[in-house]
Amino acid sequence: MIHLPRGFLFSACAAGLKASGKPDLAFVLAPEGASAAAVFTRNQVVAAPVTLGREHLRASHGKIHALIVNAGNANCATGAQGIKAAKTVCRAVASEISKIKARPQQVFPSSTGIIGVPLPVEKVTTALPGLIAVASPEAFIAFATAIMTTDTKAKIASEEFEFKGRKAGIVGVAKGAGMIHPNMATMLVYLFTDIEASPRDLQKILKDAVDQSFNNISIDGDTSTNDTVLLLASGKSNVQLKQVRKQFEGALRNVCRSLAQQIIADGEGVKHVVTLRIEQARSMEEARRIAGTIATSPLVKTAWAGADPNWGRILAAIGRSGVKVNPTKINIYLGNQQICKNGAAAKFDASKAHEYMSQPAYDIRIALGSGKTSLEFLSCDLTTEYVRINADYST
Amino acid sequence: MIHLPRGFLFSACAAGLKASGKPDLAFVLAPEGASAAAVFTRNQVVAAPVTLGREHLRASHGKIHALIVNAGNANCATGAQGIKAAKTVCRAVASEISKIKARPQQVFPSSTGIIGVPLPVEKVTTALPGLIAVASPEAFIAFATAIMTTDTKAKIASEEFEFKGRKAGIVGVAKGAGMIHPNMATMLVYLFTDIEASPRDLQKILKDAVDQSFNNISIDGDTSTNDTVLLLASGKSNVQLKQVRKQFEGALRNVCRSLAQQIIADGEGVKHVVTLRIEQARSMEEARRIAGTIATSPLVKTAWAGADPNWGRILAAIGRSGVKVNPTKINIYLGNQQICKNGAAAKFDASKAHEYMSQPAYDIRIALGSGKTSLEFLSCDLTTEYVRINADYST
Repeated sequence: MIHLPRGFLFSACAAGLKASGKPDLAFVLAPEGASAAAVFTRNQVVAAPVTLGREHLRASHGKIHALIVNAGNANCATGAQGIKAAKTVCRAVASEISKIKARPQQVFPSSTGIIGVPLPVEKVTTALPGLIAVASPEAFIAFATAIMTTDTKAKIASEEFEFKGRKAGIVGVAKGAGMIHPNMATMLVYLFTDIEASPRDLQKILKDAVDQSFNNISIDGDTSTNDTVLLLASGKSNVQLKQVRKQFEGALRNVCRSLAQQIIADGEGVKHVVTLRIEQARSMEEARRIAGTIATSPLVKTAWAGADPNWGRILAAIGRSGVKVNPTKINIYLGNQQICKNGAAAKFDASKAHEYMSQPAYDIRIALGSGKTSLEFLSCDLTTEYVRINADYST
Repeated sequence: MIHLPRGFLFSACAAGLKASGKPDLAFVLAPEGASAAAVFTRNQVVAAPVTLGREHLRASHGKIHALIVNAGNANCATGAQGIKAAKTVCRAVASEISKIKARPQQVFPSSTGIIGVPLPVEKVTTALPGLIAVASPEAFIAFATAIMTTDTKAKIASEEFEFKGRKAGIVGVAKGAGMIHPNMATMLVYLFTDIEASPRDLQKILKDAVDQSFNNISIDGDTSTNDTVLLLASGKSNVQLKQVRKQFEGALRNVCRSLAQQIIADGEGVKHVVTLRIEQARSMEEARRIAGTIATSPLVKTAWAGADPNWGRILAAIGRSGVKVNPTKINIYLGNQQICKNGAAAKFDASKAHEYMSQPAYDIRIALGSGKTSLEFLSCDLTTEYVRINADYST
């Protein structure tokens, strides 16, 4: 069940950006405005909408009226022309919603799709009036579907919480991504809530939630040029952040984790979702670095594709992660079976281990023996299908 | 033509370590000793023979009499038992060559093969007397073949040089390696020369040569647990290092580069060898970091498999490499065709680019516009065949 927060209208349409003719333009309106917080890609090569989105958040002091997203074109590596195109789109949106007196800086732009091809601005502006006219509080699924690229399904998560009988909610939608890298260049996540909160408070809470969700999946190692996580709070529940802070933080974290899981499970060619439980690390940073090295090792990931309990490849990945470890203190477990004991082979039932790793989702637990920090990190296997999807000659 | 340096005897035999029954034990004798220098894996998880090899170089002050290499078992992640096994083998070799009064510390051990399985020491010691008895100056190819694991061919390179009519030579042999990671855990390289040189001088020259060859191929990012490059100088040419220093450095570098190329070309599932020419970098370290990020990006490597001139993926990899760049100054070329101009699309003939990338080996030139340093870095594509080879359930 999806809890839709109050204060937002959604719509989507096909503007002709996707060759398939499927919906590719999505719109959200916050008629009375919303507090905004965002986390962006750390890649130095950034798409025009990311540059402009950052600028708009600053210029609007975090008060946003609309969100416009296109799929089918990333508007990245498109030079000065790309920035101009994104600005034109935001201005066109502001002028279409002139009744609510939004400035172009209160429109937040996003794009996802192919890199290096100029955005066909006219297709977007031509479609805008019809798109905006039909926006409604219920059209959330249409919005979630229009932002998909290679995704096979829409990714949605929501939670509800209350304060003295007043209910508030949060709903999130994600699109992404290749297996470890976003394929058409992007993980986009939009989160909507109707609590009342300042942009500054939202920013801190969002950063923590992203650290505990999207930064703990194997996409992390490969931030794309367009990655954006945007949180909008309409305040229409009349519940204030300070009244539900703990509940809200928990709900946001849960929604983000659920979306992160959905992204991995829908990764290109993924047959196995592997949760790495790193234990006894000295710090969260070290735990994440080790998990990230394991999760991006082609040798480890291909062993997972073959359901092969080849712990030597995992141990070798840990050894080259750059984190100081004592190999003779490392223990590795598949479910309740130990496969590596003190850095050497444990006696284990190989056929049981193979069976365990044949499941669509399972855990690998790694105890480092050097500290007290634990981390859960989501990863997946590397299959021949992934290579086929990404090797297709497309230009 | 192979120039075999004087002062070394080679042999090989099948000791029963490889399930295939193929030769898996190789031996080199330097009857009058040789100056030794070595470069090892930087992985913290190291195989027993690497630990012991380091110890022996120290204890013998870099004077080695014999080299014993087995394939089929890495003797890695085998605990204290593994060290004991490697010691037993070295002692057995020393005792077999007792006529030349070598100490066990003057025997250098190497292993390659599966991780985490105890080395069957008896198979090795049983085979030793026969192996050592047949050692001869000519049996170099037999040596090169016995150290192979997933290699499809032996990798050999040699050079000759002279000083006042006296000739000296260098010959190198390599075994490696998965595509980006050594598969059965190892790149092993042995280099033999008959010049006269101290271990200390050799060490410096070897380090430089390795930096300009094996550290500029995409294996670099993933040092295995057993990686070893060993250089032995017998002095039997009566040519001294100081008389031919420049020539020797050049010859060693050429031999190492040739072996590095042979390793990449024989990588698992490799269809295209790609030379990355990084230009206008601020430093060698930054150039190598950028090349390494491109060369280990699954998205870039799968595009290469499909002969797809998708420069956006290369640009995105540069952007996340951790090196500060100005994306609008980056130019990318396929042969003499420019595909990315100032960080945006250049006008280019896509079918010509596809044709160019369909060749088994080609160059991609990347001008960063930030400095004056250039680097050549060898890489390769990521194919479905690589995944199949490494996903086979093997335990």
